Amino acid sequence: MTWSRRHVLATDDWSRDEIELVLQQSEAMLEVLARPMRRTPALRGRTVVLFFAEASTRTRISFELAAKALSADTSIITASGSSIEKGETLFDTVRTLEALGADIVVMRHGAAGAPYFVAERVSSAVINAGDGWHAHPTQGLLDALTLRTSLGALEGKRIVIVGDVLHSRVARSDIHTLVPLGARITLSGPATLMPSAWRCGQLPAGVAFEEDVDRALDGADAVIALRLQRERMDAGLLPSLREYALTWGLSEVRVARMRPGAPVLHPGPMNEGIEIEAAVAHGPRSLIERQVTNGVAVRMALLHLLSTTPGAPAARGGGEADRREGKEVAA
Amino acid sequence: MTWSRRHVLATDDWSRDEIELVLQQSEAMLEVLARPMRRTPALRGRTVVLFFAEASTRTRISFELAAKALSADTSIITASGSSIEKGETLFDTVRTLEALGADIVVMRHGAAGAPYFVAERVSSAVINAGDGWHAHPTQGLLDALTLRTSLGALEGKRIVIVGDVLHSRVARSDIHTLVPLGARITLSGPATLMPSAWRCGQLPAGVAFEEDVDRALDGADAVIALRLQRERMDAGLLPSLREYALTWGLSEVRVARMRPGAPVLHPGPMNEGIEIEAAVAHGPRSLIERQVTNGVAVRMALLHLLSTTPGAPAARGGGEADRREGKEVAA
Amino acid sequence: MTWSRRHVLATDDWSRDEIELVLQQSEAMLEVLARPMRRTPALRGRTVVLFFAEASTRTRISFELAAKALSADTSIITASGSSIEKGETLFDTVRTLEALGADIVVMRHGAAGAPYFVAERVSSAVINAGDGWHAHPTQGLLDALTLRTSLGALEGKRIVIVGDVLHSRVARSDIHTLVPLGARITLSGPATLMPSAWRCGQLPAGVAFEEDVDRALDGADAVIALRLQRERMDAGLLPSLREYALTWGLSEVRVARMRPGAPVLHPGPMNEGIEIEAAVAHGPRSLIERQVTNGVAVRMALLHLLSTTPGAPAARGGGEADRREGKEVAA
Repeated sequence: MTWSRRHVLATDDWSRDEIELVLQQSEAMLEVLARPMRRTPALRGRTVVLFFAEASTRTRISFELAAKALSADTSIITASGSSIEKGETLFDTVRTLEALGADIVVMRHGAAGAPYFVAERVSSAVINAGDGWHAHPTQGLLDALTLRTSLGALEGKRIVIVGDVLHSRVARSDIHTLVPLGARITLSGPATLMPSAWRCGQLPAGVAFEEDVDRALDGADAVIALRLQRERMDAGLLPSLREYALTWGLSEVRVARMRPGAPVLHPGPMNEGIEIEAAVAHGPRSLIERQVTNGVAVRMALLHLLSTTPGAPAARGGGEADRREGKEVAA
Repeated sequence: MTWSRRHVLATDDWSRDEIELVLQQSEAMLEVLARPMRRTPALRGRTVVLFFAEASTRTRISFELAAKALSADTSIITASGSSIEKGETLFDTVRTLEALGADIVVMRHGAAGAPYFVAERVSSAVINAGDGWHAHPTQGLLDALTLRTSLGALEGKRIVIVGDVLHSRVARSDIHTLVPLGARITLSGPATLMPSAWRCGQLPAGVAFEEDVDRALDGADAVIALRLQRERMDAGLLPSLREYALTWGLSEVRVARMRPGAPVLHPGPMNEGIEIEAAVAHGPRSLIERQVTNGVAVRMALLHLLSTTPGAPAARGGGEADRREGKEVAA
Repeated sequence: MTWSRRHVLATDDWSRDEIELVLQQSEAMLEVLARPMRRTPALRGRTVVLFFAEASTRTRISFELAAKALSADTSIITASGSSIEKGETLFDTVRTLEALGADIVVMRHGAAGAPYFVAERVSSAVINAGDGWHAHPTQGLLDALTLRTSLGALEGKRIVIVGDVLHSRVARSDIHTLVPLGARITLSGPATLMPSAWRCGQLPAGVAFEEDVDRALDGADAVIALRLQRERMDAGLLPSLREYALTWGLSEVRVARMRPGAPVLHPGPMNEGIEIEAAVAHGPRSLIERQVTNGVAVRMALLHLLSTTPGAPAARGGGEADRREGKEVAA
C-alpha cells in the first residue's frame, strides 16, 4: 500500500488499506510524541496554513501542534479579523493562501462541501477539519485508532453512537471509517435527530438504528457520545435538555449495560450532565483524553503522508511548472 | 549601493538605486522560496512583532511567512484583545514591544503617519504595512517586482491605475515606486475619488489623470485595479456599485484595449463583479497570484536588509549602549 | 538550593532561597537576551500553551517570546473563538491541553484560584499569569529583579505601592516577593481601595498603610504605581479620575520626595495623566521599560526551571506511566 491521495476531504471513498495505512503511521507518530524531544524534521521548510472559518480550540491546536512537531511553519487564519469579513470569495482566499506558499491548507468551514470546492481549484493539499454537517475525517480516524488500541481488531465489534446524528459530521465520519474496518454501528438518539431515510430503515451497510439507548448499549463493545448542540432545542427538535439527559445521556448505570470494560468516547467539547455524566466522562471507561492525544498523532500522520504523495506540491518533488500543471513526478 | 535605512515607512523619498536593490534582493528571495526547503537562517534568534491595529489577512500572513522563512521568531498583536483596548497610548505600546525584544515591528495602523511617529521614538526597526490612506510601501515594491518580471525594464512603460485613488495607500505607494523606475502612470476613476489637486491637473511628475477608463487603457502596458471600499458609497461618493462596475470595472472587453498580453494587477482582496470581472481576475492576463507570491519575497528582502543596516539594533552589531544611543557601528 | 516546584501559582509560600534562585536564573537569561542570537535550545521539542481567558498583550507576548527564546513550540488560546464559548468546563479545557501534549500551561483567568484548581488536576506544569484579584507571581518576581538591579540588596529598603491595592493582584504578588527579600512596603491610596482589614491596621508583617501619598513617598527608596481600572469609578469607589490624579497620581514634584534617583515602576498598561504623569513615566527615574525586558527573562527562568523539576512531566525524565502517576524520577 502506498499513499497517493492529494487531499483528505472525507473517508467515505477510502479503502480499508488506506485507513489501515493511516492508523499504522499514527502509531509511529505516537512513538515520536512519547520521546523526550517531541519533534521530527519531516516537514521542515514547509508551510501549513490553518484556515478556521468556524470557531474551534481543540482541533485547531491539535493540527497546529502536529504541524510544529513535524517542524513545519504554521500560520492561523480565523474568520474574525480576516479578509473574509471584507467580502472576498472563498476561492480567492484559498488561491491567495496557495500563492503565499501554503503547502497544506487545513480548513474548517460551516458549509458542507467547501473543502471539495477548494481542493479542485488549488495545488495546495487540503485537509478537511470539519465542513458543516458533512464530514470530519480526522475525527473518524482518531476514533478508529482509539477504539483499535482499546479493543484490538474492530472486525465484528459493535459500536454504539448516541445523540444528534442528523447534524453530526463526527457520526458520519465515524461510520465511514469504522465500517470499512469491520465494525457494526448502532445509532441511538431522538428520532427527530436522525436523518429521515435512516430513521425509516434505509440504513447504510453495517449500520442499525435503535431509538432505545438502553437496548442499543446491551452487550455493546464501545459507545461514542455525540455533543448535543444546544441550538437544536431552540429549533424545536428537542423537548428539554433535562429530558434529553434522562432519556439518552450516558450515566454510569447505562454504560454498565455494555460488555465489561467497554470504553466510552466523546469528540469534545462535552456538555457534562447532558449527553454524558461527569462520572462517566472522567471514569475508568473514558478514553476521551486518549482521543485527544491520538488526534495529534493522526494529524501528524496525515500531514506527513500528504507530503509524500507522488507529484503533489506538498511533496516538493518537482519545480514550479510541475506544481501548476499538477504533473505526476516520480518521488 | 549599500543599504542604510533603519525603517521602511514609505518609498516617496527613496532613490532609484534603493528600489533596485530591494527588487534584486527580492529576486534572490524568490529563489529561496522555490527550493524544496523554503527556509534560510538569516534572522535566526531575532524577533519580528506583527502589530496589526487594522484587520488584514494577506499582508499579515505574508509578513509572518516571510519572517518564518528567514527563521525569525514572530509574535502577532491585533487590535481586539490587546492592551490597545485598555487605553494605552500607541507610544507606550510600541515602547513595550521594543522592551520585549522586538528587533523589527511590522505595523498596520488606521492613522496616516503612525509608523513615522513610532519610528522616531523606538530603536526597533519599523516597517509600515499600511497607514491610513497614506502609504503601503511593500505593496508598491511588490507591484514593481511583478510588473518588471512581466514587462522587463519599466522605463517608458505606461501603467494605468483605476479606482478610488483618493483613499488608496496602494495607489500612492505604486506611484512612488514605479515613477522612479521610469514608468508613466495614468490614473482613472470617478473624479469624486481623486485627490482634488490631482483632479485639477496639479499632478506629480510622471502621472496623468484620464477620467474615461477606456481612453486610459488604450495602448497601455499594464493596469492595476484598486479595491473599492464599499463604505465610500454610503458616504455619497459613488452613485451605486452597479454604475461603478459598468463605468470603471475591468471587463474583458476593456482590458483588451491595452497592448496584447498587457497584464492586470489587483492588491486584493477583490470585489469580483465590481472593480474587476471574475473572467479578468482569473484570466490569462492576471498576475494577481504572482503579486501575492512576490509579496512574500519583497518582505523577506526588506526584513533581511533591515537586519544588515550598519548600527541598527536589528543588525545586533553593537551592545545595549549602542542600541540606546543609535550609534553607528561598523558592521 | 535546587528547584523542586511543579507549578508557579503564587509566591506567598515561597522561601527567600527560592525567590533568589529565580532572580539569579533570570540574570543569566538577561545575558542570553543580550546576545546577537537570542535563543537557547533548552526547551526544544517541548510545548508551552498560552491559555489567556482574559485579554492581555504584554504578558502574553512576554511569555510567548520567552518560550520561543528557549526553542519551545507555542500555541495560544484566547477566550473568544475558543471552546470556552461552547460551554466546556475549565477542567475539561485544561485536561484537553494536557492530552494535546502541553508540557507547560501558562494561564490567565478572571477567577481567583483557577490555576490552583487546574494544577491539582493535570500533570502539565501550570504558571499563573494572573488570576482575578489574587496573584500575578511573575510580575512580583520581575519587579523584584528590577528593584534589585537598581537598588542592590533589598534588605531594609522601603518601597511604596500607590493605588488600587484592593483589586490588585500585582500589589499582592509584589508584597509576597519583596517582603521575603527584606524590603518594607508602604501602601498608599484611597481607603476605599484598600482591603478592609489592612485599612484598619491588621497588616501583614513588613507592610504599612499611609493614606497620604506625599508622606508615604518621603525618603522612600522606590515607588510602584498601580494601574487604575476605570471601572472602579463607575462602581462608586472613586469620586473622579481628575481627583484621583490630583490626590494620588505620581507627578514630578511628588516623586522628588523620594531619595535622590529613587526609581519609579508601573506594571503597565499605563493610564498616563491619571495614576502617573507622562513626564514621570518617561523620565529619568522610570524603570518601566526595564520591567518589560526583565519580564521576558523572569519568564524564561521559570519555564526553564519547571523543565528541570525532578519527576515533573515537563522534565520528560520518565515515560508515560511515570507521567500519569506523577512518580518521582531521578533527573
